[in-house]
Amino acid sequence: MDEIFLQQALEFGQPYTGKGTVASYIPELSKADGRELGISVRPIDGPQLRCGYWQRRFTIQSISKVINLAMALEHFGFDAVFHKTKMEPSGASFNSMSRISDSEEIPFNPLVNSGAIAVVELLLPIGLKEMLSTVRGLCSDKDIIMDEEVFQSEWSHSARNRSLGYLLQSKGLIEGSVDDTLLLYTQLCSLSVTADSLANLGQVLANGGICPQSGRRLLKEEVVRTVLTMMLTCGMYDGSGEFAVRVGLPSKSGVGGGILSVVPGEMGIGVYGPSLDSKGNSAAGQKILEYISRTEKLHIMDRLIRHEAPAAQI
Amino acid sequence: MDEIFLQQALEFGQPYTGKGTVASYIPELSKADGRELGISVRPIDGPQLRCGYWQRRFTIQSISKVINLAMALEHFGFDAVFHKTKMEPSGASFNSMSRISDSEEIPFNPLVNSGAIAVVELLLPIGLKEMLSTVRGLCSDKDIIMDEEVFQSEWSHSARNRSLGYLLQSKGLIEGSVDDTLLLYTQLCSLSVTADSLANLGQVLANGGICPQSGRRLLKEEVVRTVLTMMLTCGMYDGSGEFAVRVGLPSKSGVGGGILSVVPGEMGIGVYGPSLDSKGNSAAGQKILEYISRTEKLHIMDRLIRHEAPAAQI
Amino acid sequence: MDEIFLQQALEFGQPYTGKGTVASYIPELSKADGRELGISVRPIDGPQLRCGYWQRRFTIQSISKVINLAMALEHFGFDAVFHKTKMEPSGASFNSMSRISDSEEIPFNPLVNSGAIAVVELLLPIGLKEMLSTVRGLCSDKDIIMDEEVFQSEWSHSARNRSLGYLLQSKGLIEGSVDDTLLLYTQLCSLSVTADSLANLGQVLANGGICPQSGRRLLKEEVVRTVLTMMLTCGMYDGSGEFAVRVGLPSKSGVGGGILSVVPGEMGIGVYGPSLDSKGNSAAGQKILEYISRTEKLHIMDRLIRHEAPAAQI
Amino acid sequence: MDEIFLQQALEFGQPYTGKGTVASYIPELSKADGRELGISVRPIDGPQLRCGYWQRRFTIQSISKVINLAMALEHFGFDAVFHKTKMEPSGASFNSMSRISDSEEIPFNPLVNSGAIAVVELLLPIGLKEMLSTVRGLCSDKDIIMDEEVFQSEWSHSARNRSLGYLLQSKGLIEGSVDDTLLLYTQLCSLSVTADSLANLGQVLANGGICPQSGRRLLKEEVVRTVLTMMLTCGMYDGSGEFAVRVGLPSKSGVGGGILSVVPGEMGIGVYGPSLDSKGNSAAGQKILEYISRTEKLHIMDRLIRHEAPAAQI
Repeated sequence: MDEIFLQQALEFGQPYTGKGTVASYIPELSKADGRELGISVRPIDGPQLRCGYWQRRFTIQSISKVINLAMALEHFGFDAVFHKTKMEPSGASFNSMSRISDSEEIPFNPLVNSGAIAVVELLLPIGLKEMLSTVRGLCSDKDIIMDEEVFQSEWSHSARNRSLGYLLQSKGLIEGSVDDTLLLYTQLCSLSVTADSLANLGQVLANGGICPQSGRRLLKEEVVRTVLTMMLTCGMYDGSGEFAVRVGLPSKSGVGGGILSVVPGEMGIGVYGPSLDSKGNSAAGQKILEYISRTEKLHIMDRLIRHEAPAAQI
Repeated sequence: MDEIFLQQALEFGQPYTGKGTVASYIPELSKADGRELGISVRPIDGPQLRCGYWQRRFTIQSISKVINLAMALEHFGFDAVFHKTKMEPSGASFNSMSRISDSEEIPFNPLVNSGAIAVVELLLPIGLKEMLSTVRGLCSDKDIIMDEEVFQSEWSHSARNRSLGYLLQSKGLIEGSVDDTLLLYTQLCSLSVTADSLANLGQVLANGGICPQSGRRLLKEEVVRTVLTMMLTCGMYDGSGEFAVRVGLPSKSGVGGGILSVVPGEMGIGVYGPSLDSKGNSAAGQKILEYISRTEKLHIMDRLIRHEAPAAQI
Repeated sequence: MDEIFLQQALEFGQPYTGKGTVASYIPELSKADGRELGISVRPIDGPQLRCGYWQRRFTIQSISKVINLAMALEHFGFDAVFHKTKMEPSGASFNSMSRISDSEEIPFNPLVNSGAIAVVELLLPIGLKEMLSTVRGLCSDKDIIMDEEVFQSEWSHSARNRSLGYLLQSKGLIEGSVDDTLLLYTQLCSLSVTADSLANLGQVLANGGICPQSGRRLLKEEVVRTVLTMMLTCGMYDGSGEFAVRVGLPSKSGVGGGILSVVPGEMGIGVYGPSLDSKGNSAAGQKILEYISRTEKLHIMDRLIRHEAPAAQI
Repeated sequence: MDEIFLQQALEFGQPYTGKGTVASYIPELSKADGRELGISVRPIDGPQLRCGYWQRRFTIQSISKVINLAMALEHFGFDAVFHKTKMEPSGASFNSMSRISDSEEIPFNPLVNSGAIAVVELLLPIGLKEMLSTVRGLCSDKDIIMDEEVFQSEWSHSARNRSLGYLLQSKGLIEGSVDDTLLLYTQLCSLSVTADSLANLGQVLANGGICPQSGRRLLKEEVVRTVLTMMLTCGMYDGSGEFAVRVGLPSKSGVGGGILSVVPGEMGIGVYGPSLDSKGNSAAGQKILEYISRTEKLHIMDRLIRHEAPAAQI
């Protein structure tokens, strides 16, 4: 893989920017330019490759759910987290309320809004400052800050999340202040990253939680296993199943236009493309990842079957 | 891995037989002995390992959905199949109607009843005789027959599937006779297999569609990729997400008590344990697979990260 | 009220024929002329008034649910009927399945398709011939026959009702043959009536079950009370609540374009207007009834409060 | 009707107090004595009749929805109110969220929590003080105050209503402060009434909005028509349909144990019985009303058919 290949992938994706629209439910997000595309690829061993608007800053949005889940598992363990949400894919849209209704006691998984809000309550003792520091470390990006404009815009358009928050409280899944939890949740959605930052984060996950550059373990192995599995089954809203079949890489999208994608054992990939399809996923970003996965044979099932089989004899 | 290890796995699972109950909604299935457990492991390269009731014949039930999906993809292609169902995990119970309701145009995926029935209509031109021959070939088991008693019992308790069938017809997803499709669907559910048969089927999938013994390609590579991905995200009814996190092996359960499990690139596993949990999955069977996966580090994410990373440098 | 007034009501409704469309899901129904309108008013005491296409024959469709409910109550009693359905309005569309899903054990009420099908099973021992004779009697219309073309058209487009039928069977709410029940249900939907027939039926209900002309009791008082109450709360599909507020007359619509309306103690009204709104109710027919109710102060709450109060002193 | 008859009705109801339980989701409500029963009957013309705990003060709870709806219609009109909710019965339980989900744009009706909260926003310019004065006037009860203990208890257990409030805001159905609306909503639920107060309120509604004692019009005729119709179709939570069939009186229940019942043109009835059935309605209260309605032939359909018909000849 080289930058010429990345350029081809980006060109393959470019026409699909016209098939989506920039997020409009939060005014500040609607200012993005839907035609922009950026890619960054960060192999565990090998040079970083970039193309297009890989330096463009955008807000992490739902991709923060991956970090939040990882930190909650890291600090408070499997049981504390999965007392608050199930682990089931839901086929549900990104702000659906129907999947945490009367009959369902707890949210489907920690990567939908309701589950993610419940999980963030666990992070309150850690707080924004330390979380920001953690995100910077995982992304190898000291320039990540909270985008104040986006935060204010989201905070003043948070009725739906508030509704989810109080529903969780009514079920005992938020025990303290709904406001405190939503504040931290929204702040963590408003961190500004680049395709590069996401590729770095993906590289750490691809390497089982150890930063290849520093050799430091940033996440426990079992945390990475859980996070990657949930990304594979639930990371792309209600397009998760089809994306798993077509692309086959644990990934998480955000309405800011980013996609974090992981080739376990190989590399992290960050994509930026703020034109979203009807499910809330970057329209062109998904196509770029499909192009890369197909051309380079990166689908996890292909890799397990092809490269493993001959070498893995007992 | 050896037979002593399998014996330990079976002993680990044994207490969980008491946590479930044998399927009762079809009278004939309720005759099974819930305490029985059997395992068969079939590595791509290496001797077959067995333990417990690995020779017990039981009906394949929903595990047939995997074969049906594979054959429909093989003969009629991706578009013909996924015109009839989506690819989304549903978190839905095994005979749920709520997930193919007014607002949803097509079934969630081909491994829930509604989607599977829609897919079976594609197989009508192939017919039972050829399908039976295919199943025998994929399972390397010439003794597979249709269990007449179970078939009759299911056929006379098929009101719910008929309801699904006519709902599909009303949506144009069954174009011909509902009766013909349901007949073939029910016949294919009534084929009697053993843990051994399932392990053999799993071995073919683990090897990318090529039977390791004969060297013959039985399924196309892209069919296997799709089938394994859907098994991972949707194979264990509404316990699929948690099973993917805890065990991490593409698997499919049936209410006859069987579980087909695949270690891609490595081996096929068949488990028999007819005592089912509330989601319709073999209660002890799941625990046996969790034991094997944990002890042998077979979770796909662990394998991709661990064994791949060092060898896969670019 | 006189024929000039009826003519005004019809002219008031005429523009609304353009706001709906003729039913198209059954081919034979789509042949109706959406511009046609007819009214027939049949006071308990006083001459019959008619206007427009009051002689046009059309199929009774869902209005048969009223007769079926009445006959089931008459012959088998309150408990036999309401063992099969609840009595709750559902706000559901006319062929909804979502309201009889996994979580709901029995249909919401006997005027939605699922509940009506369950009720018709009770009528099997009575049979089509006697039911036809009963309908003729209630409607004072010897020319009512089963419209063979419409019946065939519906019978060959009955997938959704079959789906409901088998769902009911799976819940034990149909104990015998689904096919037998659906056959009678569909035959009873295919009886051809006129606005006049419906007005006569309404007159019997308005008079508490006694035919004013013959003086014969055709329905028990408690049956009429139950039927009229259910018509008021559930008779106009998911427009029932608004119709009760705006018009305030127990009514039942059918997709053939008819509306049966009852002014209890006063008169029966039949309306024909095959152009349907999005809820399946005659678009102009509702407006005609609203005009008549408002102008003549027929809303049940108005009548109870106005005319009663002074006279009913204790 | 006399006090001996009321005593019989109360004795008929007494055993049903054991079939329910006092509301427990708000701690302060759980202090009521489930065995207490009280009735008050207030004919338009004739002496007031009382029996049992008719002087017991309890909080009005959901019965306030009737007054809120009436005042919103009175001051702001039909269109302002029914822009915020539909008029459809929902068959839904009293605190259901499932009926105002993604697919439904606006609440089903103004007598379920979601619809009632939306309506209360209209009342903000009127304010608590004037509303309290109005309630006292409608109930002819100067001693009605806000029960501070119950208010505090509800206000600190209002997570579910907050969730509904923010959901409404996210749909644009609450335009101002959710907190302000919920505060007034909860205050209005916490007004303490007696069976007597409710009977007086019912008498005003029964008399078409005019207080029979003072001769003053308190509510417009069309407001009363709308309110009574909605009480009939939606007033008893998801038991509304069955109550309409069995009792046939426009009524509204509250989880404080009260039921307001109206015999249009005749009388108002107030019942107190804090032991609630699974739907949130007073268990014995319903039985008392059924006894009274059946014995005195008060079902609206019976009254329209029986007493009207002979007198109402054209």
